[in-house]
Amino acid sequence: MKQVYNFSAGPSMLPKWVLEKASAEMLDYKGSGQSVMEMSHRSKDFLAIIEDCEARMRRLLNIPENYKVLFLQGGGSTQFSMVPLNLLGEHGKAGIINTGAWTKKAITELKKVGKCELIASSEDKTFTYIPKDYTIPTDLDYVYICENNTIYGTKYKQLPDTQDIPLVADCSSCIMSEPMDITKYGLIFAGAQKNIGPAGLTVVIIREDLLKETDPNLPTMLDYKIHVKNNSLYNTPPVYSIYICGLVMEWLEDIVGGLDNMKANNEKKAKILYDYLDKSKLFKGTVEKEDRSLMNVPFVTGNEELDAKFVKEATANGFVNIKGHRSVGGMRASIYNAMPVEGVEKLVQFMERFEEENL
Amino acid sequence: MKQVYNFSAGPSMLPKWVLEKASAEMLDYKGSGQSVMEMSHRSKDFLAIIEDCEARMRRLLNIPENYKVLFLQGGGSTQFSMVPLNLLGEHGKAGIINTGAWTKKAITELKKVGKCELIASSEDKTFTYIPKDYTIPTDLDYVYICENNTIYGTKYKQLPDTQDIPLVADCSSCIMSEPMDITKYGLIFAGAQKNIGPAGLTVVIIREDLLKETDPNLPTMLDYKIHVKNNSLYNTPPVYSIYICGLVMEWLEDIVGGLDNMKANNEKKAKILYDYLDKSKLFKGTVEKEDRSLMNVPFVTGNEELDAKFVKEATANGFVNIKGHRSVGGMRASIYNAMPVEGVEKLVQFMERFEEENL
Repeated sequence: MKQVYNFSAGPSMLPKWVLEKASAEMLDYKGSGQSVMEMSHRSKDFLAIIEDCEARMRRLLNIPENYKVLFLQGGGSTQFSMVPLNLLGEHGKAGIINTGAWTKKAITELKKVGKCELIASSEDKTFTYIPKDYTIPTDLDYVYICENNTIYGTKYKQLPDTQDIPLVADCSSCIMSEPMDITKYGLIFAGAQKNIGPAGLTVVIIREDLLKETDPNLPTMLDYKIHVKNNSLYNTPPVYSIYICGLVMEWLEDIVGGLDNMKANNEKKAKILYDYLDKSKLFKGTVEKEDRSLMNVPFVTGNEELDAKFVKEATANGFVNIKGHRSVGGMRASIYNAMPVEGVEKLVQFMERFEEENL
Repeated sequence: MKQVYNFSAGPSMLPKWVLEKASAEMLDYKGSGQSVMEMSHRSKDFLAIIEDCEARMRRLLNIPENYKVLFLQGGGSTQFSMVPLNLLGEHGKAGIINTGAWTKKAITELKKVGKCELIASSEDKTFTYIPKDYTIPTDLDYVYICENNTIYGTKYKQLPDTQDIPLVADCSSCIMSEPMDITKYGLIFAGAQKNIGPAGLTVVIIREDLLKETDPNLPTMLDYKIHVKNNSLYNTPPVYSIYICGLVMEWLEDIVGGLDNMKANNEKKAKILYDYLDKSKLFKGTVEKEDRSLMNVPFVTGNEELDAKFVKEATANGFVNIKGHRSVGGMRASIYNAMPVEGVEKLVQFMERFEEENL
């Protein structure tokens, strides 16, 4: 088997422990004679799987009882619509801080059904920082952020102070990378395919009091209340993806030892890469230091041809999917939970060699 | 490993050939050093997978070039809304033939956004037949049917003659069970979890000319045009589920040898079970003979306690998930493509023994 380090932004690397278990259990889950992929979503075996997945998630993130956990489909792109369709109320207006492509899409979907207050934006500097000086109006139904921007590699180190206004956060690329204070949020959502499972599963964590009356003509599948009432089993959920997500939670809890350990490991990896970028004469990070993501590290040489050469040689040497997002170019190393420290160490060694040869 | 025969209505049995290949490739897909679950949806490896899956589907079903194939999320329940939101037009009205729970849900979602003409219904006899005598009005944007009703075990042997009005069919539980004439339909959709893959993938086959202008405020993810324009990659698709669906297509094409063979095998299995039901003094099928499904076979003893006893003993003997849908009771044997003939033969032998002991 070829040894590669997969720096993909999502779908992305999964813990080997998870894949080995999934492979071993593929034809026979715990002596049931069935694959989890073949299990009725109403079977006892599967109900135990989804309940265990949620219980582990609740323990890992310390999710309070007044928050519901949902396992849905459709990715962040569906949440861009579900959030305003469910949370707009009295004011018919939400505030958004624009930190790039993902918040722009959220703005587009919000504007279809309500008013959008642009609280702040970092577009003036190509989204290379997190806006900090702004005033949040009081006539908003919620404030929306993308907590970690996968494309630009920015991360909120401090959440906006929204007072009593519910904070909604797209945490697709940072969920489970470190402990979070769930009580600071009204709603969190995350596409699973970056840090917690396969593509095709979306996790939503929502504070109960936000489950309000919706338009009676809202499509049933877009109504959080329906999914809450049915414990994510209104229709057939993505059974196998929930099983894999459960295995990731088991790995986080029992093998890694919780999110404090995970955070320490993630900080160690990020430091190796950022320290090198800060001293390199060839490569440089593109994000303001104080707003750098632990998960997605974009960098450039400043020369497009050299970038392309680097990507090509890195790929040939087993550092795969390191090309930057098609909208920004350059390189991006996504170093999610499953990336081992040695993967980052070896990448930096390779970058050092490349620097020597090309400076 | 325990040998069980899984009669689940969905998620349901998958070909062992598919599961063995998936297990073997779980950690290393074709020497890439990655699991398909870890692959960027924009990587060359994954693009080859989704293109091969579609190409095989097109060959198997003989899909004409003027039909688009989409790989979406959200299941049939999302299609109940997407169909009217995209296909209602000039008349603002669709006709539906009500054959039970699934068409009822489609009616509910249709009525949220347009007018519903109930063309016919078999509710008078608890949905145990397919309506045949009806007139289809001409002022409809489309006619909607559930071609095979998973819960009641009914199947259209002849499609409604809708003249120039597009026919929309929910084929979740019959797709790929036999050849189809795609040109008779305007749109077909199918949740993958019954005959073609894992839960969390929905396949839509739509005739190009039905991709009309939609309400500009329609959520992006509910717009067929967006998905067509982006070859199902507008957002991150359910990568791993598409890979498994591709393996099922490979099995159908290369191992089974196409849908004529698959149909012959399915007819053989169904005949074994229906022939027994027709001569049994204890069990009886619940559906009119001419409308019986090849895939889902509901049956009862006429005595609820005996039904429960049968389900319990069948389960203990390795015939699992044979309980009828919670809304109708009794038993249901779902004998999808992946169920081998011997599974049905052994079930019938077990039923014969049970009959002897309990008559």
